[in-house]
Amino acid sequence: MICQNAIAAPLGDFRPAHFGFALAEGIATLTLDRPERKNPLTFESYAELRDTFRALRYEEAVKSVVVTGAGGNFSSGGDVFEIIEPLTRMSATDLHAFTAMTGDLVKEMRACPQPVVAAVEGICAGAGAIIAMASDLRVAGAGARVAFLFNRVGLAGCDMGACAILPRLIGQGRASELLYTGRFMGAEEGERWGFFNRLAPAGGALEEARALARTLAAGPTYANGLTKRMLHMEWAMGVDAAIDAEAVAQALCMKTQDFRRAFEAFAEKRRPVFAGD
Amino acid sequence: MICQNAIAAPLGDFRPAHFGFALAEGIATLTLDRPERKNPLTFESYAELRDTFRALRYEEAVKSVVVTGAGGNFSSGGDVFEIIEPLTRMSATDLHAFTAMTGDLVKEMRACPQPVVAAVEGICAGAGAIIAMASDLRVAGAGARVAFLFNRVGLAGCDMGACAILPRLIGQGRASELLYTGRFMGAEEGERWGFFNRLAPAGGALEEARALARTLAAGPTYANGLTKRMLHMEWAMGVDAAIDAEAVAQALCMKTQDFRRAFEAFAEKRRPVFAGD
Amino acid sequence: MICQNAIAAPLGDFRPAHFGFALAEGIATLTLDRPERKNPLTFESYAELRDTFRALRYEEAVKSVVVTGAGGNFSSGGDVFEIIEPLTRMSATDLHAFTAMTGDLVKEMRACPQPVVAAVEGICAGAGAIIAMASDLRVAGAGARVAFLFNRVGLAGCDMGACAILPRLIGQGRASELLYTGRFMGAEEGERWGFFNRLAPAGGALEEARALARTLAAGPTYANGLTKRMLHMEWAMGVDAAIDAEAVAQALCMKTQDFRRAFEAFAEKRRPVFAGD
Repeated sequence: MICQNAIAAPLGDFRPAHFGFALAEGIATLTLDRPERKNPLTFESYAELRDTFRALRYEEAVKSVVVTGAGGNFSSGGDVFEIIEPLTRMSATDLHAFTAMTGDLVKEMRACPQPVVAAVEGICAGAGAIIAMASDLRVAGAGARVAFLFNRVGLAGCDMGACAILPRLIGQGRASELLYTGRFMGAEEGERWGFFNRLAPAGGALEEARALARTLAAGPTYANGLTKRMLHMEWAMGVDAAIDAEAVAQALCMKTQDFRRAFEAFAEKRRPVFAGD
Repeated sequence: MICQNAIAAPLGDFRPAHFGFALAEGIATLTLDRPERKNPLTFESYAELRDTFRALRYEEAVKSVVVTGAGGNFSSGGDVFEIIEPLTRMSATDLHAFTAMTGDLVKEMRACPQPVVAAVEGICAGAGAIIAMASDLRVAGAGARVAFLFNRVGLAGCDMGACAILPRLIGQGRASELLYTGRFMGAEEGERWGFFNRLAPAGGALEEARALARTLAAGPTYANGLTKRMLHMEWAMGVDAAIDAEAVAQALCMKTQDFRRAFEAFAEKRRPVFAGD
Repeated sequence: MICQNAIAAPLGDFRPAHFGFALAEGIATLTLDRPERKNPLTFESYAELRDTFRALRYEEAVKSVVVTGAGGNFSSGGDVFEIIEPLTRMSATDLHAFTAMTGDLVKEMRACPQPVVAAVEGICAGAGAIIAMASDLRVAGAGARVAFLFNRVGLAGCDMGACAILPRLIGQGRASELLYTGRFMGAEEGERWGFFNRLAPAGGALEEARALARTLAAGPTYANGLTKRMLHMEWAMGVDAAIDAEAVAQALCMKTQDFRRAFEAFAEKRRPVFAGD
């Protein structure tokens, strides 16, 4: 309660202008929803997504997040005419302002305590692939295809953290291939490589992602947020320092009510009911 | 000989109070052995394991280590009544002393020069999963199941280095799933993901782990210890610095007798016999 | 044009003394070519390879690189009589000069902007395995076998960056096994683990590697070089810093002509033709 949002309306009433938003059972579902264009990103949707994940940092009503796309595709990435064309005419400083904004979206996705589950169907390309990558967990519907296609549009693979994050998900060699060639990675390949956590039938990714998100929301959510923070914090830390950092974090976690609740439930041979404090 | 243990009795006579210990052919085998409870850890066994791995640092008679569990299971982790219940009543400072102690066990496993091979059968959960994770190599018997189940007891996945080490073994996405959900990873899945190095028939993990440990003990053990140290030291180092560090380490290794022995054996068309100096 | 080589002759005329060299279609092919000995490395070939990759840093005529071996093998590594025997008699300072030189070869392979594709057939061992590992992408012909066999010759696995790079390619556990045991990794295993990007029929690795190199050479080569630099730079960087670094790099990339070319091609519904500036 200490850190609740000082400025935002309760997220239950939140109606973003550039993507769909629903909150139910503690799960926020963000839907990229311009299906006639395969849900491209625009300057406005980047900024609104960034601000929404920022708001989630202090939003205790949301326990986990699902990101998905409408109409059978996840996202085709930055729109060619609404983003790429203007970029070809921008000043260096404006370009940097843009890349910093898109990078900030990934930072906010990694900084909010709620685990984010991406439900991926169909095309998942460019900035769409990045949003899937920046999620905590990923579910693919059969036929989903993911491309970090920056080099197809003359850009480098170093977009929004891809050169740091993608190698940790699928290995340095496979990440290098995807980033140098821009080729598509299929759903099964992505599962085999560790990009996708689960495969669902075509059209079934959202349901599977929601089931995962429901499990996460029913868990000890403070502890889950701490797991997320430490995964981030230890990214480039030596092993001994990481162990020391975890000793402090876990001792704090042992002072939560959820830890006591779990023990009591175990002693009474019933399933624990967590409350996130 | 310079660094031999100043205080411990020779390990051949070592009889730990809280786990089984045997030394043969240069291989120390540590057996978690309260099979009626699936070999849980207790405050005492954590401390004794930590001190044993610490002693191994200076124990030249031990060339490699096998860790295993008695009675068809590896370990069920921290005992619910002997560990978790007391933790629910402890002060913040005592909790931190506990998490620091468990973390120190992992530090000592990574700091001793001997490669550690975990032989995993049956249940391998919580702190048991951590001990397997902190080993250098892992062999599973068919049917083995590994769970980092901290969040099932209301805790975070950041326990004893898991948020740092597990992602490097199986990838960031798969590690995230295991740490956020506490679900079991099966033996075959674990092999596919790179957690297990080898699969054995049910009940056959120890024999396979011993075979591996024997190979390691017959190798150039000073060199193996240096490999282990550098894998640890380079964890969060840039590539160029790591290359420089390895140039120094390998030059030192080229001054060992084992390097000369290997060349002489090759010139005489026979297998080298290493002595670890 | 700013950074072109001040001292080297044009690489088209380059005739190295210790390996084969060909330049065609912007692709430099380096061939280890003492097939009667399975293409071992010598003091001279290490140094010449190092200097060649160094020269590539400023050589704009070369867009991508293929490294391969003649006669059905990649490389057997450091020659036993031409390298290992002299090393057994060297001073500590000369040994360090040698290991620093071999490490510098890997540094130069990672520092040149051109992606390097290794085409691996047959034996790929020791320093040969390192050269494959230090490449950006790897293609195996069926039957190829890779061994980081340093510990078989009494040395440590920490050679030329292996303890840093190999775990990022195939995971910490699998890398540990290969470095502690020196055992061979087969082509299919290597593909399954993420070491090899592609498998080709026996004898077909070079053709497949050339196809990949051709794709890379036809891409936006300045952007590809930036991808390579950022993959290297972000190796041990935290996620947020990496995102910031990429925002700067990608903004720069958006000022290239290749980015504009890609947009114009898209608007005109044709394939872009990149020029690398």
